[in-house]
Amino acid sequence: MKIQEKQMQDLQIKKPKYELDINKVGVTGLLLPLKIKYNGQVNPVTANISAFVDLPKTERGTHMSRMIKILHNASSKELDPDEISNILKELKNQLNAHHSYLKIEFTLFKAKKSPVTKNEGFISYKCFFNADQNAVMNLRLGAEVLVTSLCPISKSVSKYSAHNQRGKLIAEVLCNDKGIWFDEIIDTLENGGSCELFSVLKREDEKYVTEKAYENPKIVEDIVREVASELKKNKHIMELRVSCENFESIHTHNAYSEITLKNG
Amino acid sequence: MKIQEKQMQDLQIKKPKYELDINKVGVTGLLLPLKIKYNGQVNPVTANISAFVDLPKTERGTHMSRMIKILHNASSKELDPDEISNILKELKNQLNAHHSYLKIEFTLFKAKKSPVTKNEGFISYKCFFNADQNAVMNLRLGAEVLVTSLCPISKSVSKYSAHNQRGKLIAEVLCNDKGIWFDEIIDTLENGGSCELFSVLKREDEKYVTEKAYENPKIVEDIVREVASELKKNKHIMELRVSCENFESIHTHNAYSEITLKNG
Amino acid sequence: MKIQEKQMQDLQIKKPKYELDINKVGVTGLLLPLKIKYNGQVNPVTANISAFVDLPKTERGTHMSRMIKILHNASSKELDPDEISNILKELKNQLNAHHSYLKIEFTLFKAKKSPVTKNEGFISYKCFFNADQNAVMNLRLGAEVLVTSLCPISKSVSKYSAHNQRGKLIAEVLCNDKGIWFDEIIDTLENGGSCELFSVLKREDEKYVTEKAYENPKIVEDIVREVASELKKNKHIMELRVSCENFESIHTHNAYSEITLKNG
Amino acid sequence: MKIQEKQMQDLQIKKPKYELDINKVGVTGLLLPLKIKYNGQVNPVTANISAFVDLPKTERGTHMSRMIKILHNASSKELDPDEISNILKELKNQLNAHHSYLKIEFTLFKAKKSPVTKNEGFISYKCFFNADQNAVMNLRLGAEVLVTSLCPISKSVSKYSAHNQRGKLIAEVLCNDKGIWFDEIIDTLENGGSCELFSVLKREDEKYVTEKAYENPKIVEDIVREVASELKKNKHIMELRVSCENFESIHTHNAYSEITLKNG
Repeated sequence: MKIQEKQMQDLQIKKPKYELDINKVGVTGLLLPLKIKYNGQVNPVTANISAFVDLPKTERGTHMSRMIKILHNASSKELDPDEISNILKELKNQLNAHHSYLKIEFTLFKAKKSPVTKNEGFISYKCFFNADQNAVMNLRLGAEVLVTSLCPISKSVSKYSAHNQRGKLIAEVLCNDKGIWFDEIIDTLENGGSCELFSVLKREDEKYVTEKAYENPKIVEDIVREVASELKKNKHIMELRVSCENFESIHTHNAYSEITLKNG
Repeated sequence: MKIQEKQMQDLQIKKPKYELDINKVGVTGLLLPLKIKYNGQVNPVTANISAFVDLPKTERGTHMSRMIKILHNASSKELDPDEISNILKELKNQLNAHHSYLKIEFTLFKAKKSPVTKNEGFISYKCFFNADQNAVMNLRLGAEVLVTSLCPISKSVSKYSAHNQRGKLIAEVLCNDKGIWFDEIIDTLENGGSCELFSVLKREDEKYVTEKAYENPKIVEDIVREVASELKKNKHIMELRVSCENFESIHTHNAYSEITLKNG
Repeated sequence: MKIQEKQMQDLQIKKPKYELDINKVGVTGLLLPLKIKYNGQVNPVTANISAFVDLPKTERGTHMSRMIKILHNASSKELDPDEISNILKELKNQLNAHHSYLKIEFTLFKAKKSPVTKNEGFISYKCFFNADQNAVMNLRLGAEVLVTSLCPISKSVSKYSAHNQRGKLIAEVLCNDKGIWFDEIIDTLENGGSCELFSVLKREDEKYVTEKAYENPKIVEDIVREVASELKKNKHIMELRVSCENFESIHTHNAYSEITLKNG
Repeated sequence: MKIQEKQMQDLQIKKPKYELDINKVGVTGLLLPLKIKYNGQVNPVTANISAFVDLPKTERGTHMSRMIKILHNASSKELDPDEISNILKELKNQLNAHHSYLKIEFTLFKAKKSPVTKNEGFISYKCFFNADQNAVMNLRLGAEVLVTSLCPISKSVSKYSAHNQRGKLIAEVLCNDKGIWFDEIIDTLENGGSCELFSVLKREDEKYVTEKAYENPKIVEDIVREVASELKKNKHIMELRVSCENFESIHTHNAYSEITLKNG
């Protein structure tokens, strides 16, 4: 046992064989129960977490178990920008690092009423934090919202109808204060397609969404421009990336478009 | 509008073109927030749901929106065998069906202390219901638990060490009463490998799990036999399937083993 | 070395601790280059393979490396029902088993001309063998074909247009002779939706597929009935399972339907 | 028909509603059969392709079908840096763009002999191009190689054995000439772990790889440093990113490390 304690120390102080800075070292695929505020309430979520720190060329290894402890402790708190910043700070401090990274993915739900008959059903949104902290924190929030997209070219050239499909619309915004949250991002994305999605649709609702999409045709380029234009108006957003991937009903491949820009 | 109402009725009563019984019709990939009891508390989960009914050859279509409403309503309840049975019954009744099916997948968490230093961290378990109801209900519960597996052949032939890896151990049991629950299944699976997994491991813990796995080598066949033998003792289990897939550290492919049996 | 040889033998003859028959033991996730005949030519494919044998309760373990050798050797041959049977036989013989299993998944391509302008592009099809051999071989062939599905209810109730989407149509047929092959399955599935998919679509083609889908509306129940009815005519098919999963453009969840039947 | 032609033109010339530059517009998830040179031979592969161009704020939409035609035509050629450059050029020219992007993923195989008994089996490698062309082309090549990693800390603190696992080692290198190819990247990655993987392993081979991994322990930080140091020696490489993700046999989460650097 004495010998092993010595071995532990030896390993710890041992120099790395190749002196190269490591940009990121840490954990991926860590699942944890977390709490996220959304839609006026605190939501329990199942989060998939990655956390990293940098490691200077003079150190051989980091302390993985300390990371897990820090993340485990975050599980009991309600995550907001301040808490994200605290976790990033703690990662830097406890792991003697200059740069820390945190990526957290989870699903949020909203009970939504159908447009005509007002039948309620849950809609789900994949959401994420993508944050890092060096001298200051960069906090990116993002959401993925499914929408209907209906093709104006197909509408224009055809005697009747138009091909339409499910599209995956994602926004990621850099915003270092509490001025924007998942609520605003999700609402903006939901309005970006030809029609938003619902869970329960009776006949009268189905008529409504079918006609609305047809009256509101958008190519994938239109969708990302419209969402980016809307998000740009928010002065809390410093940078944004908006992408849309349409699972074309007439092709086996998808149509994709993306805008990245700095705001203000 | 009058015309459309007529069209709706026409469609509804229209006979199918090909008179074939449909075994399953319904929804897949429906995400919902649900509540599951586990480890002495009620756990909020993000559930991925499939629900189906049969459809006789004389009927053209089922009523998808009724299914979604039934499932949406289930979201506020704590799911147990009685509630699962209620949902299956409601699916049959409201959709005029003889056979209903329900598959629900979600992640459960347990805070677990490391074996020596007693540091706490969450371990996650993918769990599922796989139920159907005709005259009576067949309720299958299942869980997927990750374990360490260490190869006895590698240990036997090598001067030192043995290859070991993460293994995915799954049990699905048919049990039509409340005599068994996720707690028992997960506990049995966790003991099925060469060593169970932990979230936070300090040096003393790492020594413990490394040595324990080496002292407890098992091939993939041993693992499924041990788990199946243990589950067989439970008289509430009528049928079981146990599988293990080891992500071999020495191969790009996996080793797999499976036992299916009727009990008693 | 002498000692180790003895250890190897000891392990080999060692009885299992729990005397339970194992239904399947073998490998999963083995990637291999294979050759499959389709569309009049021999196609090189990247195959994902699982192979299993049964193991009696008196034996502790099987011989995984022999399986890999058998599968590696199959890589140079053109796979057809005779070759599949040979592999299953060799698995039984070399592993002293009574029952062997083989599941092989791969992607086939067909260069397809667009309907009006005749522009050529590749369409891909996920295909699979799902075979086992006890006294006799059961050979199942299957394919997954993406199609457009357009909803007749949406068409019926709306002033104009109808929601449509990409659907995933899968057939798996039991057929123990050479009377049916991927060509026939794929062709039948491609005709099962409201319109088939193409790779290159110019404006005139887009008009054609948009209008064709609108003139040919089908709910998910119609699609599986139509495909099952068509496949049933083939007397080489002894059993079939047809499923369709529509990625609804108006919902976040999917519509699903499935028919399983014995033929003749 | 006359009317429709006019409609098509109208749409084509129509200005976008929101004048924002689009960074990327194109296709994702396009599967094609391609040919890649590797290990001294031309390999047929199943490729998953994304292709994009930029779109100025004055134009509403791009021409997706032209992209597909360009990619379809590439299918008959053997892909090398010159061909990748040709495709990127053609995307820019035919779509009137300034910047084009191409990402191609596929699986390569090598028949590898086991270390002692020299039994042959295929090992698979996920590989990719990640290229773009503005004024000049940036060509990134990459490969993902699975390796054994064995933990030196576990070895150091334990009486015997050490936890080991499958690790996923990825390198992506920027290299604008023909000075480096998949062969060199794959070979370097295979030597980066505690031991390389084999397909067929007899007892003598298993002894060899078990002992070799134990004699060659590496934490995830060691692995990326060693691979990055080796790749840095290649003067054809201008930038590199090396990452390793170990599927820890003692945790449900993974250990991850990453180095990004400019060379020379």
